[in-house]
Amino acid sequence: MTAAGDEQSAYVTAVAAELSAFLARRRELLAGISPDALALLDAVANLTAGGKRLRALMCYWGWRGAGGAPGSTRVVAAGASLELFQAAALIHDDIIDRSDTRRGRPSVHMAFGNLHSEQGWFLDQERFGHAAAILAGDLCLSFSEEAFADIGPEAAAGTRARQVFNNMRTEVMAGQYLDILEEVAGPTKDRSKAVDRARSIIRYKSAKYSTEHPLVLGGALAGAGEALLAAYSAFALPLGEAFQLRDDVLGVFGDPATTGKPAGDDLREGKRTVLVGYALEQAPEADLGFLEDRLGNPDLSDEDVTRLRSIIIDSGALGRTEALIDDLASHAFTALKALPVDSITMGALESLATAAVKRTS
Amino acid sequence: MTAAGDEQSAYVTAVAAELSAFLARRRELLAGISPDALALLDAVANLTAGGKRLRALMCYWGWRGAGGAPGSTRVVAAGASLELFQAAALIHDDIIDRSDTRRGRPSVHMAFGNLHSEQGWFLDQERFGHAAAILAGDLCLSFSEEAFADIGPEAAAGTRARQVFNNMRTEVMAGQYLDILEEVAGPTKDRSKAVDRARSIIRYKSAKYSTEHPLVLGGALAGAGEALLAAYSAFALPLGEAFQLRDDVLGVFGDPATTGKPAGDDLREGKRTVLVGYALEQAPEADLGFLEDRLGNPDLSDEDVTRLRSIIIDSGALGRTEALIDDLASHAFTALKALPVDSITMGALESLATAAVKRTS
Repeated sequence: MTAAGDEQSAYVTAVAAELSAFLARRRELLAGISPDALALLDAVANLTAGGKRLRALMCYWGWRGAGGAPGSTRVVAAGASLELFQAAALIHDDIIDRSDTRRGRPSVHMAFGNLHSEQGWFLDQERFGHAAAILAGDLCLSFSEEAFADIGPEAAAGTRARQVFNNMRTEVMAGQYLDILEEVAGPTKDRSKAVDRARSIIRYKSAKYSTEHPLVLGGALAGAGEALLAAYSAFALPLGEAFQLRDDVLGVFGDPATTGKPAGDDLREGKRTVLVGYALEQAPEADLGFLEDRLGNPDLSDEDVTRLRSIIIDSGALGRTEALIDDLASHAFTALKALPVDSITMGALESLATAAVKRTS
Repeated sequence: MTAAGDEQSAYVTAVAAELSAFLARRRELLAGISPDALALLDAVANLTAGGKRLRALMCYWGWRGAGGAPGSTRVVAAGASLELFQAAALIHDDIIDRSDTRRGRPSVHMAFGNLHSEQGWFLDQERFGHAAAILAGDLCLSFSEEAFADIGPEAAAGTRARQVFNNMRTEVMAGQYLDILEEVAGPTKDRSKAVDRARSIIRYKSAKYSTEHPLVLGGALAGAGEALLAAYSAFALPLGEAFQLRDDVLGVFGDPATTGKPAGDDLREGKRTVLVGYALEQAPEADLGFLEDRLGNPDLSDEDVTRLRSIIIDSGALGRTEALIDDLASHAFTALKALPVDSITMGALESLATAAVKRTS
């Protein structure tokens, strides 16, 4: 393994240990209230045990690139906080999107619904699942903040790091709102601006918090100046957009065996992504009617999914999206090469960036 | 107006101004993302504009009783933070409980659902309303934490105040989970322990965060020692329990004109309160069957509500609950009189306590 690889895996191990220790302390408090309440904590623990750790790693290399020392507990606490925030967002996002699986396992609301059914409890199973997942997400969001405060004085009100963390939360929630708004209000809006709206949505709901904010947060914690933080953004924002566009392509064309989600999930959900926006711009009239009619229909048949995929391909939307991913990735890699960071950080960020845009799950 | 009254109203005004200034700063950030995203902020602003300010006031007098100076910005920031936390909890609680009104106006998920309908948007109105309210609650929960960090170094990791604030959040979410769990799993559990379970639920989901934690938080911010904080708890915890029991009585017997909620709302929701627990313990077999069958039925008729009320009265459950409220209030007032605080604080806490247990809305 390379020096960067060793360092990175030591950091990932430290973040996992910090998450475990953090959750073990909260387990004591919850067990004192009632053993029944531990189900909430278990949901959080399961979700934070996995994942790509992309956000924590961006934070780490942002820190290292700004001269932060390897092995600092502060950047470990920051990584744990970002992973908890991500888990909280996923729990609520899966309720909102009615996503029944997450990483190939039942999503949190489904898991609580399954518990209801297995135990033979009363009243409505789905309602219970949603309610429990709302609370699990709230708990996880609070935990994220507690872990952030654990960083120390660098996380106090008024610091650059606190500003990044606060803005990240608000931007994600605003971006998610614009996303659900576009699902319901998109058909009433100017079709020629659908791609612009979709790009704005992915910037806020995903790109900034997946790559840009974590990288800038790590830099800010290490005391980076505004010039380096701006250079970080110039690299990470197009990278995050490319990352989310890849996600959108996988949401329509991905293999369920590798994505862990049903085929065509985003189409059933009615996500008005950039991919769909390009199709709306260029599909012939007959296809357009079918697209507008079926998008967001939870009962889409496999044949419907196949035809929608063909429309997206034949209209050129898939090709244009892939070209946009390439263009954004190219901007990101150019900005990466200009970063004033040491060669270990540069190599690590290059690997992360490549994985983010080439991924299949 | 008394000296305490003047001081209290100056504080309430300062908290309202702090909330307005806080939200105005966030409005700028959201408007920069998209004017559409301001709907989330408006939902938070509407909800935090009203209410009894019970939590902020408990915090204030906890601070003053521990020697904190009137007019400190720190206790104003703490009050704003508590009010934002309360608003976040209400937004999500109303989704979970399917409460369509809050303080006589549409609850947040209903307001977003109404917006969907008024605008003639597509797909499902209710789903959109719930999704938007999940996000509004998340934003409000994040705001609460940001306002808490604004207190300054007293809110850093490891302080007594931070410990209270963190525990408060976890306890509320655990208590709310136990509450929804009891709705679905209660019928499978030992009926003779229903009252014990219901009392544990109200302690965590409501009593501690309505009165005890805010009072202790104010004391901790002013540097109170553990003896005073324990004396605060001895007063505020039974008070909070009495406060919630009064709420439970109003949820079944309250006048919709003063509570702002439909008559018998808690019965439709299936809340297994102390009031219901007593009825389950003592109602005759025939009534018991009706009670178990109708509790949690969203389509309860007015006649059903009337009969359920009669069962609760005739079984002695209402009388026992009122006696328990009196007993808890008596403990609270005895502990209040023993508090080593100045006479202005004593008088103010007495007024708040009286209002909390005698209220009709």
